[in-house]
Amino acid sequence: MAFHYPNGRKFMPQPAKIKPSHSKEMSYSNRGKTLEDDLNETNQYYLTNGIAVIHKKPTPIQIVDVHYPKRSAAIIKEAYFKQASTTDYNGVYKGKYIDFEAKETKSTASFPLKNFHDHQIKHMQAVTAQGGIAFVIMRFSITDTIYLMPAKELFVYWERMHAGGRKSITIQEVETTSTKIPLGFQPRIDYIKVIDLLIKENF
Amino acid sequence: MAFHYPNGRKFMPQPAKIKPSHSKEMSYSNRGKTLEDDLNETNQYYLTNGIAVIHKKPTPIQIVDVHYPKRSAAIIKEAYFKQASTTDYNGVYKGKYIDFEAKETKSTASFPLKNFHDHQIKHMQAVTAQGGIAFVIMRFSITDTIYLMPAKELFVYWERMHAGGRKSITIQEVETTSTKIPLGFQPRIDYIKVIDLLIKENF
Repeated sequence: MAFHYPNGRKFMPQPAKIKPSHSKEMSYSNRGKTLEDDLNETNQYYLTNGIAVIHKKPTPIQIVDVHYPKRSAAIIKEAYFKQASTTDYNGVYKGKYIDFEAKETKSTASFPLKNFHDHQIKHMQAVTAQGGIAFVIMRFSITDTIYLMPAKELFVYWERMHAGGRKSITIQEVETTSTKIPLGFQPRIDYIKVIDLLIKENF
Repeated sequence: MAFHYPNGRKFMPQPAKIKPSHSKEMSYSNRGKTLEDDLNETNQYYLTNGIAVIHKKPTPIQIVDVHYPKRSAAIIKEAYFKQASTTDYNGVYKGKYIDFEAKETKSTASFPLKNFHDHQIKHMQAVTAQGGIAFVIMRFSITDTIYLMPAKELFVYWERMHAGGRKSITIQEVETTSTKIPLGFQPRIDYIKVIDLLIKENF
C-alpha cells in the first residue's frame, strides 16, 4: 500500500542492496535506482575522494512513544513524519556552503512547482542571502535528463506563480536557466563540476 | 524509565513549551533547559535576524514498519535509532560552511572524550580538510560554563587518547585551547561572535 509524507512525497522503503550487475545492456532507467540513490552514491564518491563533504539530512520524525526492552535496542513504537524546515542536502565544497533539494517529475513538458514547499523556498532564500550556494537538482524521469537550476532562477518562477502565473517551469525555461548534468559512471551525477563552472561565473 | 540512543546519548522527549516566567530569581541552571534548547533558540535568533542559517539535523531513524490509516497521517509503528554519520549542527555564515557538535558533561575537572565518536571526528576532519569551520560547543553543566573548541584542537586530544594517553581533556586544557562563550539573553549562546574572532585569526 502506498503512503505519503505529510508533504505529499511518497515514502520509499529502503530497498535491499543489490550487487551491481555488469551487463552492458543495463541502462539508467532499468536499474531501478532513484535520484536519491544516485546522489547518495555521488556524495559518497566525493567524500571518499576528498572532493566535497555533502550529506542527505535524515527525515524529520516526531517521536511519541519509545519502548526500551531489556538487553536490546530501544524501539520507537509511535512516531510521525514531520515537514522538513530545510532542503534535503547540504555540506561543504572548498570552504563554501552548498545546499540543495533534489526533485523528480514524470512530466516531459514542464517541471511542476508543487514539488516545492514554501518553507524550502524560504530556506533557500535565507541561504542565498547568507552567501551560500543553493540550487535544485531536477530529474525528468521519462527522458532521464538531469538539470541543476540555481536557486535564484527558481525564485523567479516561484514568484511568477504567486503573482497568478503558471504553476510549472516549462522545459524550455529549464533549458535556458539551468545546466544539464551528464550522467556518468563514477560519480553518477557530477554536480560539483557544474558548481565549479557557476562559481567562476559568480553563480 | 530512562532510555538511550545507540551512541549512549539520553533520549529527551520534547517538553511542552512553557511560557517564560519573568522572575528575577530565574537562573540558567533552574530553567530546566538543555544545551540543545539554548542552541535552537540561538539559531532561531540568527535566522530571524539574518545573521546565519544554522539548523540541528534531525535524529536519524531506521524505519521498519509504517501504518497508513484512512483519513489520518501515516504512523510509524516500528523504528530504531541509528548512529549519525555527521555532527548535529551545520549551516552557513557569510558564505562559509559551519559545522559543530554540542556536548555537555557533569564533570567539573575535565571533559570526557567518550562524548565523541570516531565517525564524528572523521566527519570534522573531512570538513576541516574541505575548508569548512568545524568546532565543538562544550558545556560544563555544574558550573554552567560554555566553551567553543576549534576542531583542530579536539583532534590533538583525540590522537593523544588513541596513542594511549588520557581519555579526557582537563579543564586547564579546555581553557587554554578554547574560547569561553558568555551566556546572554538574546541570543542565549552567541557562538557566532566567537567564530568571527576566530575567522580573523584564520581559525
